[in-house]
Amino acid sequence: MSTTGKTLVRGDQIGGYSLEDVEARLESGKGISGVCKTDLPTPSLLLDLDLFEANIETLARHAASRSIGLRPHSKTHKCPEVARRQLEAGALGISTATVSEAETMARAGISGLLITSEIADPNKFQRLVRLTRHHPDTMAVVDHPWQAEKMNEAAEAGGVRLNIMVDIDPANRRTGVEAGEPALRLARKVDRLPHLNLRGVHCYCGKSSHVHGFEERRRHSMKSLAAPLETFFRMKQEGLPVEIFSGCSTGTYNIDPEIEGITEMQAGSYVFMDLDYRLIGGRGGEFYDDFKSALTVLSTVTSRNLPGQATLDAGLKAFSTDRAFGPQPVGIEGAGFRWGGDEHGILVLDGAAADVRLGEKLEFYPPHCDPTVNLYDRIYCTRGDQVVDVWPILARGHR
Amino acid sequence: MSTTGKTLVRGDQIGGYSLEDVEARLESGKGISGVCKTDLPTPSLLLDLDLFEANIETLARHAASRSIGLRPHSKTHKCPEVARRQLEAGALGISTATVSEAETMARAGISGLLITSEIADPNKFQRLVRLTRHHPDTMAVVDHPWQAEKMNEAAEAGGVRLNIMVDIDPANRRTGVEAGEPALRLARKVDRLPHLNLRGVHCYCGKSSHVHGFEERRRHSMKSLAAPLETFFRMKQEGLPVEIFSGCSTGTYNIDPEIEGITEMQAGSYVFMDLDYRLIGGRGGEFYDDFKSALTVLSTVTSRNLPGQATLDAGLKAFSTDRAFGPQPVGIEGAGFRWGGDEHGILVLDGAAADVRLGEKLEFYPPHCDPTVNLYDRIYCTRGDQVVDVWPILARGHR
Repeated sequence: MSTTGKTLVRGDQIGGYSLEDVEARLESGKGISGVCKTDLPTPSLLLDLDLFEANIETLARHAASRSIGLRPHSKTHKCPEVARRQLEAGALGISTATVSEAETMARAGISGLLITSEIADPNKFQRLVRLTRHHPDTMAVVDHPWQAEKMNEAAEAGGVRLNIMVDIDPANRRTGVEAGEPALRLARKVDRLPHLNLRGVHCYCGKSSHVHGFEERRRHSMKSLAAPLETFFRMKQEGLPVEIFSGCSTGTYNIDPEIEGITEMQAGSYVFMDLDYRLIGGRGGEFYDDFKSALTVLSTVTSRNLPGQATLDAGLKAFSTDRAFGPQPVGIEGAGFRWGGDEHGILVLDGAAADVRLGEKLEFYPPHCDPTVNLYDRIYCTRGDQVVDVWPILARGHR
Repeated sequence: MSTTGKTLVRGDQIGGYSLEDVEARLESGKGISGVCKTDLPTPSLLLDLDLFEANIETLARHAASRSIGLRPHSKTHKCPEVARRQLEAGALGISTATVSEAETMARAGISGLLITSEIADPNKFQRLVRLTRHHPDTMAVVDHPWQAEKMNEAAEAGGVRLNIMVDIDPANRRTGVEAGEPALRLARKVDRLPHLNLRGVHCYCGKSSHVHGFEERRRHSMKSLAAPLETFFRMKQEGLPVEIFSGCSTGTYNIDPEIEGITEMQAGSYVFMDLDYRLIGGRGGEFYDDFKSALTVLSTVTSRNLPGQATLDAGLKAFSTDRAFGPQPVGIEGAGFRWGGDEHGILVLDGAAADVRLGEKLEFYPPHCDPTVNLYDRIYCTRGDQVVDVWPILARGHR
């Protein structure tokens, strides 16, 4: 991985701010100018604002140039401040994975919400109804007639009309109704139910997003989307009021908009990026770097007694652990990482170009951004070495 | 895995409480009697109080019978309510992984805190000093003379004496000073520094805890602890004021107390248990079930369109993902699990003894309890199908 101009911060440069000092400055409204990132408690989640803003700009421009809508996914960031910046850059609204994420975004004044996961119990049906009462443009997905009926009943009881997308399975085998007749039957049913508004088709192929190699990824995505798109066109031909076809990930942002029919994309990871997406390969080369690695975890070297390794205060609770690879240190060529336990990581220094010292603070690129962000309560925003803002990750946790 | 008397809850029995209803009842002080666990939003973390109380009782009795102290580890639960119950059952205090966990426990009135991970920067030194000012019995660990010097300086500046344990590496290769002369030199240094109180030796061997098979685990633990214990005895012979030797995990609770010299144990996972510990094997058989699986995750079947599988609303953000195996469904013999993404899990029903329906709620044993608990903000406590209490997981997140 190429470095991004981040400099290693040495232990003897650590400032004296305690957590309370940082928090007190924030709460007093004084801001945190003068707070260096090395003053922060570790492990902490850092966002390089210059890179983050470039990522938002890159996708917004691309979407505009293809005349395609953008409803970025908040499951990556769970942070209304990020959503606000996505909307300012021209997004139509925000996609959310859960009702709880949508509720949090709505409370923060975010509109144009699309909940992309199926819901299937009274608790969530009632909450969707309540959310729609206050935010009538909220949309949800269904992939089964039972859900449509239950949502229609809840909508009637709550005195609202729910906006519904038919979720079609792009052979991803996770959620969605089968393309063709089953999807058409479900769309007709939703259209007939008096308290539901049929709005369009939802079709997200997670498997396509992570296919390595641009050409292979393109073929995979085009194949996966063919039957759902054909079904969408048949719905239109029948006169069903389907306006939206929502799909498309960070991995296929420059593939899917070329396909006729897709009206909006719901990419999420592009704002932060991670090692996982970086490794899928780009249009032009081995690494996918259309979007920049803006998110890092700051950690302290807390033990340094063994040759060839240093122990860090960031472990299984500081990074996502769902991929086969761990985080990658920023700026120390040849250094590796292995897990050391819940609160410990091991920096492997055999063959590394530089040594590290006890007390030194280091940054790491996370393996997978979404579940990493989900472990933290706040994002510290930086420009260079300075902390310039702190954003609460309000939608994490399960409610 | 044997079932624990939990009954499957069918979709048509789901009650009508929304999250707000549950929360409003809690906030009004009305309690949540009458709330069934199927009323809860999913995914949710459930704790079977009968099993949990039995686990606390089992370890407390064992420790008492061996005349060994118990300072249970809060990194498992991060929940002051759990810590309180451990103290009520006779624990000397609470071990914590981080300064932040210790601060949270202290705010909740928990005393006898031992922070078991090294700290190595001004932010944490200052916070340890502040914590010790209000809770003078707080203890911390060092494994390097530099740390001892810096902590002595911080203690002098803050006008406190810090209680220090020398952390000795049981060949675990994560933290700790080498047993023998290096550890003795460090202990002498701590003892000489005017603002530090040398209290004892910390020695935790995570590798021993998870050795499969009781006899193999016993041999591993005895071998790992031999040199650290010999060093502890030499410290005593020299007249160094070392009273405490702290170590011992859930996996070695019935091994280490038999070894002369260990004064207290810091087991954590025993309160909840998980699949990981269950698989290490017990004294008497294939499964380690001295402690009962009290912790589950409640999930809803949100999509059910494909033969042989059902999609759940619990994925990478609902369960720990650091082990090679996923969660296990409770009470459906032959059913399996595979990851379906950040917010999705796939219940594999090929060969399962029962089918599941759209909207049905199911419980799962987590693969690894500590990082699973860390994903949630609250624990819903149950007796049978009734929710009887809710405990906030106050120490999660990084501060």
